Amino acid sequence: MIAEKDILKCHEIIQPFIHRTPVFTSSLINEISGCKLYFKCENFQKTGSYKMRGALNGIMNLSGEQKNNGVVTHSSGNFAQALSKAAQILGVKAYIVMPSSAPAVKKEGVRSYGGHVIECEPTIEARESTAQEIIEKYGSSFIHPSNDIPVITGQSTAARELLQTHSTLNAILTPVGGGGLIAGTACSAYYFGNECEVIGAEPEEANDAYRSMISGKIETNTTTHTIADGLKTNLGNHNFPIILELVKEIITVSEIEILTAMRLIWERMKIIVEPSSAVALAAVFKKSENFANKEVGIIISGGNVDLQAYFDGLGIKK
Amino acid sequence: MIAEKDILKCHEIIQPFIHRTPVFTSSLINEISGCKLYFKCENFQKTGSYKMRGALNGIMNLSGEQKNNGVVTHSSGNFAQALSKAAQILGVKAYIVMPSSAPAVKKEGVRSYGGHVIECEPTIEARESTAQEIIEKYGSSFIHPSNDIPVITGQSTAARELLQTHSTLNAILTPVGGGGLIAGTACSAYYFGNECEVIGAEPEEANDAYRSMISGKIETNTTTHTIADGLKTNLGNHNFPIILELVKEIITVSEIEILTAMRLIWERMKIIVEPSSAVALAAVFKKSENFANKEVGIIISGGNVDLQAYFDGLGIKK
Repeated sequence: MIAEKDILKCHEIIQPFIHRTPVFTSSLINEISGCKLYFKCENFQKTGSYKMRGALNGIMNLSGEQKNNGVVTHSSGNFAQALSKAAQILGVKAYIVMPSSAPAVKKEGVRSYGGHVIECEPTIEARESTAQEIIEKYGSSFIHPSNDIPVITGQSTAARELLQTHSTLNAILTPVGGGGLIAGTACSAYYFGNECEVIGAEPEEANDAYRSMISGKIETNTTTHTIADGLKTNLGNHNFPIILELVKEIITVSEIEILTAMRLIWERMKIIVEPSSAVALAAVFKKSENFANKEVGIIISGGNVDLQAYFDGLGIKK
Repeated sequence: MIAEKDILKCHEIIQPFIHRTPVFTSSLINEISGCKLYFKCENFQKTGSYKMRGALNGIMNLSGEQKNNGVVTHSSGNFAQALSKAAQILGVKAYIVMPSSAPAVKKEGVRSYGGHVIECEPTIEARESTAQEIIEKYGSSFIHPSNDIPVITGQSTAARELLQTHSTLNAILTPVGGGGLIAGTACSAYYFGNECEVIGAEPEEANDAYRSMISGKIETNTTTHTIADGLKTNLGNHNFPIILELVKEIITVSEIEILTAMRLIWERMKIIVEPSSAVALAAVFKKSENFANKEVGIIISGGNVDLQAYFDGLGIKK
């Protein structure tokens, strides 16, 4: 459990460096779902995802000397960009360990935010040993993308903001990847909600959290054939106990359900969201009877999608 | 010229039926452009475009008896959907004359908002004679998508809202199609702005307004090979005098400039905008020296784009 005062303190210190993202609604999607949905749009957050919150708090919790020696993480997703940008804002060096096989556009993204890309072989062992080398060489602090208490505390502030303006929500749904967002959200709902349930949403194709909740121990994915590429990671020892205690359930959805929800959001709300974010709306549709007439928050986790193919089709090359 | 009191009256009566759309900013796009940009997001307006404003005012200016006999327009674009929805809200019948060759998805869109699709041959003559038949048969009132004073007055309210919160804007840019949006915007800037210039943006491939401003008479397009499909129409006798008097200039941009601006908005702002809307940002980039360090408003006209190809590529059929 994260302490209430830590969430409030975190929110106060990161606030100057984040956007207070808007909460969107859609009367059409309300009609379809049969409940009142409030979308907390972290796709509009700096670097395009909520990860910015945890990355900032992770760095801000370091001592002055630690900051001087930089931070290191391994990620080829949103946390890589968020930690790079957060470090740049705070004047700290960020080393981002990425597999050599990561798309060039991801590496460029990190560099554009001032991060130093350190390439390694595309294996878990290489990733960890490379990060360890940076720690030993520069004395840098390792910041895990999801299984780190200050990072989880940072992620809790999205739901904190949502509940500040929508205090009567009956439930909040988030996608579940590494577990940082849902654990943080659950803590905020506990302190700032009014009997507000927290529910996770996960692809059937990467249902490790669903199985972990049943077995009571951290399960890993055997396959991860999902378009929701932010949700392929496993829970960790810091966030899983929080999830086990505070999260009501995990709803799993199929790939077609994810894409249908994503298309609805793009076409009707005119906002670009990642497949991972659409998983949460898909979960509401999947178990709509559970949410009938309720006020339901959804954390739209991010909006970083590769639009190359779409614009190629329109006749422009980047 | 439209009277100030008519704009204020219009804004008051349509307000219950429209969204007060948000104004977005992007620090990255400000950096690229060298000015401070304020995007009035009418892509979030009901039916996905600013056309809802004019459609509502067009109908609300009719007498009770006229309303009983319904309204008719010819459009296969955003005005078709807007008039259908506005009519539905106000309990009025809407007949939408569309070429038989119009995409099925456009006809479905109109029907989903309660409009009655009347198909005709894809010629200007057939379009006008078919609308005339409806007028004679049902006594319906014809409402032109852009060359109609109450419609232009309705469109003026987007800039009115923008200037209510951003009164120091040095300029506002809008795309120019049939001329309704820019004429309305120019009137609002005149009354509510502080020496706020209004500038039009147009594709080189459909530069009728640019040439009309030079010749002083309404020019027509000879070719319209542009992706900005909302901007292929010509100015009209009601809006052209306003444009000629109040609009500072029309900036024309190439197709590649339109697509580059559109991609930047999608990728960095995470919002879906039509090519027509991107034309205005492209115009700022094109003549960035004119806008250096200025506060510049852009009316994002709409967000109705066909995403079928994109989602087909991801593996889902609608």
